[in-house]
Amino acid sequence: MNSLLRSTRFVAALVAVLLIPASLNAQAKPAAKAPAAAAAQVQTGPGGWIKEFGTMWTFDAPPLAYWKGRYGFEPTKEWLEHVQLSSVRIPGCSASFVSDNGLVMTNHHCARGCITAVSPKDTSYQDAGFVSASAKDEKKCPGMYADQLISTEDVTAKIRSAVTATKPADQVEQRDKAINDLQTACQSAAGMQCQVVTFYQGGKYSLYRYRRYNDVRLVMAPEEGTSFFGGDPDNFTYPRFDVDLTLLRVYENNEPFKAPHFLRWNAMGAKDGELTFVVGNPGSTGRLLTMAQMDYLRDVSYPLTLAGYKAQIALYKELVAQSEANKRLYENTVFGLENSQKAVTGYNAGLIDKNIMAKKAAFEKDFRARVMGKPELAAKYGKAWDNIAAAQKELGSFAIATAFQGFGGGSNLVNLAAGLVRIPEQDKLADSLRLPQYRGPGMARQKGQQGMNLPIDVSMEKKLLTLQFTRAQAALPANDPFLKIALNGKSPADAAAALLDNTTLAKADARKALLDGGAAAVAASTDPLIVFARSVNAMATKHAMRAAKLNTTISANVELVGQAIYAAYGETLPPDATFTLRISDGLVAGFPYNGTIAPYKTSIYGLYARSAEFDNKAPFKLPARWEAARSSVDMTAPLNFTLTADIIGGNSGSPVINAKGEVVGLIFDGNIESLPNRFIFTDDVARSVAVHTAGITEALKKVYGAQRLATELQTAAAKK
Amino acid sequence: MNSLLRSTRFVAALVAVLLIPASLNAQAKPAAKAPAAAAAQVQTGPGGWIKEFGTMWTFDAPPLAYWKGRYGFEPTKEWLEHVQLSSVRIPGCSASFVSDNGLVMTNHHCARGCITAVSPKDTSYQDAGFVSASAKDEKKCPGMYADQLISTEDVTAKIRSAVTATKPADQVEQRDKAINDLQTACQSAAGMQCQVVTFYQGGKYSLYRYRRYNDVRLVMAPEEGTSFFGGDPDNFTYPRFDVDLTLLRVYENNEPFKAPHFLRWNAMGAKDGELTFVVGNPGSTGRLLTMAQMDYLRDVSYPLTLAGYKAQIALYKELVAQSEANKRLYENTVFGLENSQKAVTGYNAGLIDKNIMAKKAAFEKDFRARVMGKPELAAKYGKAWDNIAAAQKELGSFAIATAFQGFGGGSNLVNLAAGLVRIPEQDKLADSLRLPQYRGPGMARQKGQQGMNLPIDVSMEKKLLTLQFTRAQAALPANDPFLKIALNGKSPADAAAALLDNTTLAKADARKALLDGGAAAVAASTDPLIVFARSVNAMATKHAMRAAKLNTTISANVELVGQAIYAAYGETLPPDATFTLRISDGLVAGFPYNGTIAPYKTSIYGLYARSAEFDNKAPFKLPARWEAARSSVDMTAPLNFTLTADIIGGNSGSPVINAKGEVVGLIFDGNIESLPNRFIFTDDVARSVAVHTAGITEALKKVYGAQRLATELQTAAAKK
Repeated sequence: MNSLLRSTRFVAALVAVLLIPASLNAQAKPAAKAPAAAAAQVQTGPGGWIKEFGTMWTFDAPPLAYWKGRYGFEPTKEWLEHVQLSSVRIPGCSASFVSDNGLVMTNHHCARGCITAVSPKDTSYQDAGFVSASAKDEKKCPGMYADQLISTEDVTAKIRSAVTATKPADQVEQRDKAINDLQTACQSAAGMQCQVVTFYQGGKYSLYRYRRYNDVRLVMAPEEGTSFFGGDPDNFTYPRFDVDLTLLRVYENNEPFKAPHFLRWNAMGAKDGELTFVVGNPGSTGRLLTMAQMDYLRDVSYPLTLAGYKAQIALYKELVAQSEANKRLYENTVFGLENSQKAVTGYNAGLIDKNIMAKKAAFEKDFRARVMGKPELAAKYGKAWDNIAAAQKELGSFAIATAFQGFGGGSNLVNLAAGLVRIPEQDKLADSLRLPQYRGPGMARQKGQQGMNLPIDVSMEKKLLTLQFTRAQAALPANDPFLKIALNGKSPADAAAALLDNTTLAKADARKALLDGGAAAVAASTDPLIVFARSVNAMATKHAMRAAKLNTTISANVELVGQAIYAAYGETLPPDATFTLRISDGLVAGFPYNGTIAPYKTSIYGLYARSAEFDNKAPFKLPARWEAARSSVDMTAPLNFTLTADIIGGNSGSPVINAKGEVVGLIFDGNIESLPNRFIFTDDVARSVAVHTAGITEALKKVYGAQRLATELQTAAAKK
Repeated sequence: MNSLLRSTRFVAALVAVLLIPASLNAQAKPAAKAPAAAAAQVQTGPGGWIKEFGTMWTFDAPPLAYWKGRYGFEPTKEWLEHVQLSSVRIPGCSASFVSDNGLVMTNHHCARGCITAVSPKDTSYQDAGFVSASAKDEKKCPGMYADQLISTEDVTAKIRSAVTATKPADQVEQRDKAINDLQTACQSAAGMQCQVVTFYQGGKYSLYRYRRYNDVRLVMAPEEGTSFFGGDPDNFTYPRFDVDLTLLRVYENNEPFKAPHFLRWNAMGAKDGELTFVVGNPGSTGRLLTMAQMDYLRDVSYPLTLAGYKAQIALYKELVAQSEANKRLYENTVFGLENSQKAVTGYNAGLIDKNIMAKKAAFEKDFRARVMGKPELAAKYGKAWDNIAAAQKELGSFAIATAFQGFGGGSNLVNLAAGLVRIPEQDKLADSLRLPQYRGPGMARQKGQQGMNLPIDVSMEKKLLTLQFTRAQAALPANDPFLKIALNGKSPADAAAALLDNTTLAKADARKALLDGGAAAVAASTDPLIVFARSVNAMATKHAMRAAKLNTTISANVELVGQAIYAAYGETLPPDATFTLRISDGLVAGFPYNGTIAPYKTSIYGLYARSAEFDNKAPFKLPARWEAARSSVDMTAPLNFTLTADIIGGNSGSPVINAKGEVVGLIFDGNIESLPNRFIFTDDVARSVAVHTAGITEALKKVYGAQRLATELQTAAAKK
């Protein structure tokens, strides 16, 4: 299975929304008006909580009044500190210490790199799973580290006072220098990693100090058939039956790290209705987006993205249907695209929900009224919304042109040709005047790519380019200048063939020669793809530059909105996710689904059921260990469960703890209904999905013969 | 559990749509235009099949060209005759012979009356299940019969030739007499039941001759906890885990009937992708409805119905939340209402689906063009659509008045008071001028009800009446004459209390006295409810009579449309369901659901899973026999499965057979996605749900100790 596609899972879900390939897609509608704000009003709960902003709380501003008001829960300072210090962040994911011997729990899909890297030549631990028989079998993960958040410090004032200039560009420079200075000073302490974290898009700055552990070893990982049981089809859904677990161990001086803080293992796990907390590092949310930004996503960006997925899925499905060989080649591409389609459709579901959008509109109205009600806020921030709206509207006005009058469509050769034409041109410009991908270190990356030996499937490239031309033909007027150049009277298929049958650019040498030859070589080239790229470049670059300028305006004003939100509401609103440590509260709960009810937990019975119900075919095939354990495992043991806590990509591997601070679960996904939570938090049917500690315990003992680890968890939990 | 509500299941689903209590509900919108017909065109498949009309074929016009074209399936005349004669119809349901010893298979919910009736005083077979140890333990079902369709005869010409009058009323009388004569002549043969069936709303008439079997005995029935596992929440959904089975036996002369035709048992059951057929008696569909009729349902009728459910659900949920006693009293009412809400929401889902409606509009356009293209058809039928549309529009114009200016809202006492006021008044009128419910035998029923000892919960009545008045207040203008009478300046609760606290009508004697006293007694009564009914009666009756007249116009024109459809398309379109024997084709197939895939079959593992996942609480509690069988039953045995065959209420108990005519399953429900099939057939995600014969076989042997029956099935199947 293609590892790029496989990573289109929960961790990477945030990538899907941030990297919306607007230039790949078609059928944009003109930016329409958002539905009227109805009669919705901003409703505040305990401690000033506004539900739509969710519960991703920072440890330096725990919502004590809200917790007390909503649950009667009053944690001590020690409780919070203990929980914070028991948590660690690993690349792209979250994790936690679960024994005093440095044992760390995270998701299988968070440790994939390590599991693959430590596999011996003749065995894939990814396929076969791995259980270390003893400490000396634990395998060091190359390049892996774990960061433990030691302290945070509000440095807003320090950074603000460093910004004295009046010109925006100078301000940015001063701010970046202040941030850099703070980080460098802090980092000089040995073993520390420091980062200034920007909250509320610039409303608040905090200096986060981490202790970094560099010796992390693989202790136990189930087979991917278990951790990702149900595969792409079941991804983002629940009921679910995955043991998405990896156990790692932190070492210090070649000895297991005696972790002073770790979460005690509760082998009974989460109960229905129980108050729980998720501690981890959510990556990115868009809850502070303005209405205009959300309108743009709904009306312009997502329709283009989804139309692109739809067209590509149809193309690959047709190929898959043609032969068994094609099925092997492209079936996972179909699953991956369908998974992305599922994710974006899910995000969009919130944006097209009138009730959800009415709440968002009510909040924006309240927010703007607060800003306009204070002259100093009004002067600083009052125009930000309209500035964003104007820029989004203009972006929408040429979105179709951006998508189709250029180099989109996923053909690597077309992109490489475009790069060869653009590199000499962009090289001559000042950095800030370049297209975004050629700024700073981007130029070197672009050049480097041309010389790489890339595996290029020309026949597939031709199909993708034919598709792009076909879609361009449907989206653009018949007399469009791009169509004249691209098709020149031919059919899309013939035009794509004319370009790709006779190009030499599939070879790295040919590209390298043109790169080295510079503008003159490119101008002299008669390679049909270069000729095409030269002819199209002017209009494509015009759109791209116009879009880049508008996006800069949006960024600057988004920063103002962020500052305004902090000024207007303070920390009653948790900041958008920043891949830093948060604690989110929630209840263990099922939800209405499929015309009936989804249970709060699934069972090991259910795993065997789903496998049997698909005749034990992949991705529902049971690994051999589970086949063998069929008669000995406790079928009634809970396997996965759902809770209302607020999570997103980056939270993968987060522990779910109870009010005593014991681990009762391991976050690994959200249900499909939770996808709209990216923009506005709801918990009617949206749920986080976790592995249940009772299921993990049963699997360790009865399926994986990992009694050693089960005992370690149990023994550590019993310690005072 | 309230048996009325429990019957709100699959069999009775058709009741829900036919008995839409328009007078119970609020918030009608003005009749809006249907979405434009887009570019949809009528698409015909093999044998002229138009998919939207589904596959409920009659045995006298089997779609041989379509079957051959679509599946390469060419049944012999004997195959069809054998299948027809192996099938029987029982009250409200379908069934089939499955052994040469008269064994009959149907659903548990089809035999509920018998199961209850034959239970001994100290045991409920409904709760405990029943397995006859030997033939002599089989228990005769009082009043139960089974009808076997022996022959059909096209009598359209006979009936048409009998209709010679020119006045519509005389025509109806002549037609009814012709039908009656045909039935009587046929029925005179001993043991025969004859019925003239009206197809295409009058396009075709057939005389159906049935052999009736009057001695039907209960052989085996599982516990309701098994047959209806998952209860109302899982009703209309899939994945599903129900053994919705009853085995009956037909006796003749006190001996098991030696059935010459029976379906052979295939204990392996249905396979993924297999061609299958459902043979049974679908009750009622609305696929010939005109656009105007569907618009009315979507824009007027269903919104009123759904608003009524919503309001009542909220009321009962509030009560349930108040105490454990209330929970016991009303929880099943909530489930029942939610089930009806689920059904109507499902029907409506098709009507609000633009793609589905565009297909329907394209068909109507094609249909009307065919009619208008032939002068004789145009003259006869050309105006029918516009006549229906005009009548529906007028009905919509006073739907809110009908719903609220009268006796609606579900208070039995209000209805009884209305009856007392109306009976003397309606008694004086000619039958055809009466309100529909007082016509023919209706009058006697209305009178009879007044003297019955009905269990009336006055406190609940008060809540329902308060709700109705509250909704009336919201729906009607403040100066509405009904509100003046009903509320008279009081709050809805006070007004309801004033009426119900002081009425004597809860007692049958008091009602009987008023009934016997006639108009004079009613006029003299000072009972507050009678006073109220007297004051409201004029306006309520005015609306009801106006609606009745419009409905008569609609019926007459609907009949014309039916005749036109038969004239224009012949039998390439199967007629709407008429609770007569049909054969429907389909493939065994899973479907996309919940963001992932539903498997084509579920397993016994899944039954234990769903029970464990709800902590074995009702309606997911396992009956004792299943608890006991946990370690011996084959968990991988398929339990339920899904297929694309076309079914609806009345098909309950239908066998699913394979191309060899062997039983591979037992229909008992449709998934929630199949509910819109009432109006237009689709099979993208709509599925019929059946019990798998492998699961039945396993349950008989390992759970119910019914080896005798398993052997009977197996032995009969092995016979030549």
